[in-house]
Amino acid sequence: MGGGGRKGKTCQASLDVSRINGKEIVSQLLKLAKITEAPEPAVTRVLFTDKDMQARKYVKQLMTDAKLQIREDAMGNIFGRWLGSDKAAAVVQTGSHVDAIPMAGAYDGTLGVVGAIAAVKGLQTAGFKPRKPIEVIMFTSEEPTRFGLGCIGSRGMAGTLTAKVLDEKVDVNGTTFQEAATAAGYGGKSHEDILSQTLVKKGSVAAFVELHIEQGPLLEREGLNLGIVSAIAAPAALRMTFFGNGGHAGALLMPDRKDASLAAAELALVVEKVVLGTDSIDTVGTSGSWAIKPNTLNAVPWEAKLEIDIRDINGPRRDAVVSTVLKTAETIAKRRQMTHQVEMINQDPPATCSDQVVAAAEQAAKQLGASTKHLVSRAYHDSLFMAQIAPTGMIFIPCRNGWSHRPDEYSSPEDIERGVKALALTLSQLAGGATDSNSEL
Amino acid sequence: MGGGGRKGKTCQASLDVSRINGKEIVSQLLKLAKITEAPEPAVTRVLFTDKDMQARKYVKQLMTDAKLQIREDAMGNIFGRWLGSDKAAAVVQTGSHVDAIPMAGAYDGTLGVVGAIAAVKGLQTAGFKPRKPIEVIMFTSEEPTRFGLGCIGSRGMAGTLTAKVLDEKVDVNGTTFQEAATAAGYGGKSHEDILSQTLVKKGSVAAFVELHIEQGPLLEREGLNLGIVSAIAAPAALRMTFFGNGGHAGALLMPDRKDASLAAAELALVVEKVVLGTDSIDTVGTSGSWAIKPNTLNAVPWEAKLEIDIRDINGPRRDAVVSTVLKTAETIAKRRQMTHQVEMINQDPPATCSDQVVAAAEQAAKQLGASTKHLVSRAYHDSLFMAQIAPTGMIFIPCRNGWSHRPDEYSSPEDIERGVKALALTLSQLAGGATDSNSEL
Repeated sequence: MGGGGRKGKTCQASLDVSRINGKEIVSQLLKLAKITEAPEPAVTRVLFTDKDMQARKYVKQLMTDAKLQIREDAMGNIFGRWLGSDKAAAVVQTGSHVDAIPMAGAYDGTLGVVGAIAAVKGLQTAGFKPRKPIEVIMFTSEEPTRFGLGCIGSRGMAGTLTAKVLDEKVDVNGTTFQEAATAAGYGGKSHEDILSQTLVKKGSVAAFVELHIEQGPLLEREGLNLGIVSAIAAPAALRMTFFGNGGHAGALLMPDRKDASLAAAELALVVEKVVLGTDSIDTVGTSGSWAIKPNTLNAVPWEAKLEIDIRDINGPRRDAVVSTVLKTAETIAKRRQMTHQVEMINQDPPATCSDQVVAAAEQAAKQLGASTKHLVSRAYHDSLFMAQIAPTGMIFIPCRNGWSHRPDEYSSPEDIERGVKALALTLSQLAGGATDSNSEL
Repeated sequence: MGGGGRKGKTCQASLDVSRINGKEIVSQLLKLAKITEAPEPAVTRVLFTDKDMQARKYVKQLMTDAKLQIREDAMGNIFGRWLGSDKAAAVVQTGSHVDAIPMAGAYDGTLGVVGAIAAVKGLQTAGFKPRKPIEVIMFTSEEPTRFGLGCIGSRGMAGTLTAKVLDEKVDVNGTTFQEAATAAGYGGKSHEDILSQTLVKKGSVAAFVELHIEQGPLLEREGLNLGIVSAIAAPAALRMTFFGNGGHAGALLMPDRKDASLAAAELALVVEKVVLGTDSIDTVGTSGSWAIKPNTLNAVPWEAKLEIDIRDINGPRRDAVVSTVLKTAETIAKRRQMTHQVEMINQDPPATCSDQVVAAAEQAAKQLGASTKHLVSRAYHDSLFMAQIAPTGMIFIPCRNGWSHRPDEYSSPEDIERGVKALALTLSQLAGGATDSNSEL
């Protein structure tokens, strides 16, 4: 063991995590990335498809290799537990997801699962014996691809999801979550049953920490090693459908048209304008998903569906943007003599990170000599929901150009190694414990 | 035979076509509409798919029932010939297509095939014996769905298609026209071979006339029975792709974005604005096809492809609109710091209809006591290309609300019957001939 100092309540151990190897972790991440529906290097893994099931198998293999006890719940969340010396203690959890949106990359989510298992292995190699149990979680469906709702697993664990909401969701083939989960070997009698089986008992989680790539450009731009997340932005998503009037692209004269795609085009530009109009760097808005009918060169579009995502660290400011977008959609529909329909997909509150977890991560960074910055997480993460049942924090590592959700997403082996080491040290502090060669840390 | 008069060169026969039955034709059209990839009543029939092959089989059955001699060329154009008394005479042709864009209706194209066979049967029943042969054609791929190019069959016949253009086209699976045609039982050694087999000898077609639903609202609005087409508008189509920068919808801050979908949205609105700015009712522009990548709620679109269709009866005015759209796309891409790529899909010249065919159609309408109007055809039709090798005309019937290319496309049995009778009388005039009970007409 090295000669790290101890001070105050945080009581940082000078654990030797130097054998945590970035290149080894990268090789596991790239192995996982080969399990994809899209042509490599793009990664597409949709909930409970063959590729998702193969990825789950690989994760369980890594958990087994790390001697973790595996448990899976009714929603398909996978837990790998490292037993602690105190059998009665609440568990320290870490984890993320391995599902991937269409044409995504190799690092989003996966780092927080593969890296967490590597962190636990690193602690084991260092001779660490945790007092509280440590659990690595692979959450079900963090991405909204299949059912139009993200973080399904962590929402279920935190009890923020109702059976009614799940009952209303189906995938493109009309399959329900319950049917898909059952086909995958999970599930229950009903969504209510599945949710009651998944719900985590209050107080049973001592802390939660998630390692993730930043998915933004700030760390790289400022040349910093680690981001310690202080708050998680409030995301809202809505689906807007305009119903116009179709017809032949040559024959339908301009005054007789109600082209639904043009209403959607206007609204997408309004989203951009309203968001820029807040003059706040923390407000973002995206019209990411477009569905035009019939979507062919020689027909006037009669229906256009736009999915819009608006986020902010400030809940009321975000809600003001949402409200302006809704009002403008109405104006556009009226002017273009169309009907329209709004569906709020979600409108979640922001979360503040736990001081305890932030302090542990800061101490870990200090021990590693890593430069840090407090950051706001602007992406959806399972941490947003775990924060509702446990003291929660996140550790970010830089990613190239801030790119994520695309095939050329990239973090260096050095940054990955540093992030996993920081996670290991953070977990050791949150769990407490001792090393073979040392007394209680 | 009734007692119709004869006068001047048009020499109209007072053929009795009263046994042509609109309800019978509708029942055939609806039978054809049941051959569809889309849920009924929507019709989707894409070139050389199983459904297209089934539809071809049905058309050939109808041709056989009408005692027509069937011939198919290398592109898959189907010809049903009724022999004339003059073996050396050039052929009078009529026809249209049965392929259908996604989510289309039961009448576009099909009327001009099923109705043409019914017209020939009506002439046969009336005891008419044509001097020139009459041929019903089902053209291959009038719709651009599969290869991004419409009127493939008639372009091939007219010799306006080069092997180079066909060589560059593939469908979504990378299949070439040659491969698809061969798999369907047509085809040839190469596109060059296919085209040389398909090319129609100059002077071998005496006239061409196509029966079609209007696909516009004018006849219905003015309460008229038949439209006699005087000109066919000049269509142009282009594919515009913007290449931006993707990223996570929550994490990528607004100043760092290059959202390709917003460039496409701007351009679609520009197309509308420029077209309206011509102040000409004959100019139309449509951004009908949108392809956004990755097209998911929580990712910033990095690529957006828009297919734009611009038509006019005035070629230079249409080209001016195209040129403004191209220039503005460049401005948008520059302002949004993106690259973009333009591909001209086609830019065909307008066509003028033949006086001879127009006069024959007018005479037919007169015999039927039908009210008429000269119209401009604003849709792509095989007639546009047939006009390059033969005196050509079109007859339109009203369709509800001017709707076409949508599942609720509709023409009444009465209008259909009147249109088919007009086609029959027009063909009889163009072919010349006699009835059993009458001397040479």
